[in-house]
Amino acid sequence: MKVTCKFFFMNIIEHLNFKTDGYQIVNITEKIEELVHRHEFKKGLVNLSILHTSASLIVQENASKDVLNDIRTFLSNLVPESANYLHDVEGPDDMPAHLKTLLTNTNLTVSVVSNKLVLGVWQGIYLCEWRKFGQTRSITVHLLGE
Amino acid sequence: MKVTCKFFFMNIIEHLNFKTDGYQIVNITEKIEELVHRHEFKKGLVNLSILHTSASLIVQENASKDVLNDIRTFLSNLVPESANYLHDVEGPDDMPAHLKTLLTNTNLTVSVVSNKLVLGVWQGIYLCEWRKFGQTRSITVHLLGE
Amino acid sequence: MKVTCKFFFMNIIEHLNFKTDGYQIVNITEKIEELVHRHEFKKGLVNLSILHTSASLIVQENASKDVLNDIRTFLSNLVPESANYLHDVEGPDDMPAHLKTLLTNTNLTVSVVSNKLVLGVWQGIYLCEWRKFGQTRSITVHLLGE
Repeated sequence: MKVTCKFFFMNIIEHLNFKTDGYQIVNITEKIEELVHRHEFKKGLVNLSILHTSASLIVQENASKDVLNDIRTFLSNLVPESANYLHDVEGPDDMPAHLKTLLTNTNLTVSVVSNKLVLGVWQGIYLCEWRKFGQTRSITVHLLGE
Repeated sequence: MKVTCKFFFMNIIEHLNFKTDGYQIVNITEKIEELVHRHEFKKGLVNLSILHTSASLIVQENASKDVLNDIRTFLSNLVPESANYLHDVEGPDDMPAHLKTLLTNTNLTVSVVSNKLVLGVWQGIYLCEWRKFGQTRSITVHLLGE
Repeated sequence: MKVTCKFFFMNIIEHLNFKTDGYQIVNITEKIEELVHRHEFKKGLVNLSILHTSASLIVQENASKDVLNDIRTFLSNLVPESANYLHDVEGPDDMPAHLKTLLTNTNLTVSVVSNKLVLGVWQGIYLCEWRKFGQTRSITVHLLGE
């Protein structure tokens, strides 16, 4: 006798690539939401992993561009490029990029309910490029739930 | 023939509201633990999402009130209200609140085992209100496991 | 009639202890990967919880030791031991250790696919000891998935 378990457990990993500009903070909420919709992921966790250490992930305000610019200015002042870093072979913007990543997130876990990301009205998910020149950045999106 | 799958997978989302005072760091561990108990959630992940960008979540020491006061002082010095922020329409405490959130967490994933939060003896979960005036802050609590 | 549900859901918690040296940033990736292999954990989430508030978890570059040294120097300058902290009973390195933990992570969620941690080529998982003297630090490793 064959029994099909009615319970459906989703455990899917997708990869997204983003082409960034230097020192850019870019809203990637729609790209994540698109994956949630495509897989008809109803309820569960979305774990985001950025596979780099000089770029990072944050949840921040989605309304005012000024907030993003103030974040860039604040972190540039907090982590100056002119400090005497030991690690300087990749240029003066490299070690500061590692430190800005340190102060923000490489991994971020967001909930999903009713096929929608659990975010506040004014929240968006952002990819932060902390290097001077744009690159291709890889993010792994893991859907675990129903 | 009806077959009931013995496996029980919990995937529940609850919403909590907290009324804060200005610049307050408040221990919310008991409120989260209460939800874990009420749902008889035995083992799994609890993902917390604060739905704001000027308030945040941290795990910190639960014994000394001085630690919390030192955290407030440290971040007030690190992120001064008198800087020339572009984003200043909501008052001088607003952009610093976004930056303090940036440096801490909007999402936090804690494990549960034997119906208890996996926290160290001296650890508590805290909601940080970074605005000058108290507000109602919403936190989504997601239980995924057994 | 007995029906065994074919679906296998892994929900396992393990505890790891690490003996640290003072102010050390130590690569613990292999220890986590070892657990993933031993349990034949194929796909899911690994949630790490450090049960302390003066030590923390980060994902950082695994190639250059200079990056780790620059991180230590940067945070030592950002969080000086000579500030007038209210919380000073446990020595001048204690409150700075709490603040360095605040700026990094107590909990970290990493994905696993094909029995391997989802990390970039240059990424490693690190335990940061922020106290002056080494200690035994406990980390809970939670495997949730298949």
